[in-house]
Amino acid sequence: MITGLDHVGIAVADLEKSLDTFRRLFGVDEAAIHRERVEEQGVEIASFTVGNIRIELLAPLSEQSPVAKFLAKRGEGIHHLSFATTDIRQDLHTLEQQGFRLVDAEPRSGAHQMWIAFLHPKSTNGVLIELCQPKNEDTDRQSLD
Amino acid sequence: MITGLDHVGIAVADLEKSLDTFRRLFGVDEAAIHRERVEEQGVEIASFTVGNIRIELLAPLSEQSPVAKFLAKRGEGIHHLSFATTDIRQDLHTLEQQGFRLVDAEPRSGAHQMWIAFLHPKSTNGVLIELCQPKNEDTDRQSLD
Repeated sequence: MITGLDHVGIAVADLEKSLDTFRRLFGVDEAAIHRERVEEQGVEIASFTVGNIRIELLAPLSEQSPVAKFLAKRGEGIHHLSFATTDIRQDLHTLEQQGFRLVDAEPRSGAHQMWIAFLHPKSTNGVLIELCQPKNEDTDRQSLD
Repeated sequence: MITGLDHVGIAVADLEKSLDTFRRLFGVDEAAIHRERVEEQGVEIASFTVGNIRIELLAPLSEQSPVAKFLAKRGEGIHHLSFATTDIRQDLHTLEQQGFRLVDAEPRSGAHQMWIAFLHPKSTNGVLIELCQPKNEDTDRQSLD
């Protein structure tokens, strides 16, 4: 079940420069920034909390990264919305049965120790939606690991 | 001060059809849908809550609507992020002084009985950011009405 919005992913060309912009906008301390490389997705991220959600800035690690392709096609801007779910496998199954197109039929490893999966924006009015679930929820870890 | 994300605005061509899609995705009852026409912005909206945030679907009322122009240029998708603030006037002033470009130097009337103002996406990495503040916060109503 989807319980709420976990984070908003923003595609940027220059991670440090855009981080400086968003830190000023939201008044975020450098100490509150989480940095991570997610090789599997070809991105380097910097994320921080703004009240009830997280903002995740994504910069490509190479030209082959999906984020590099996004930037080439659309320019910088909002890349995806990531919604927290209590059972990512079950939700993917249910959504597929309802006719939603999946990018990932199986969850894969994302930043912040999360299982993640994308829905295809063609079936959600152009919005790239990610589902995410923390890896340390024991009930699901067994079936996913 | 920005306290968190209030809602995500999604530009859509057909309000009822896309509402049906998002209702299925998030499991939202028809009774939980808020509908409103915001003539000043040339949009018809349908919004609902998903846990910690609101999703606001925006459809243009005319070809002159900024949302119609957005759809013509970019197609359907995420239109803006709206952040709640405790003092919209003060924040606009501070952000302008910090070099952020404003679309609205003064707050204007939006949906959900809110004062709203947009920042220009050129100064926020292509992300259209709205600030919003409920009109019924007495301290600010006096100065804004």
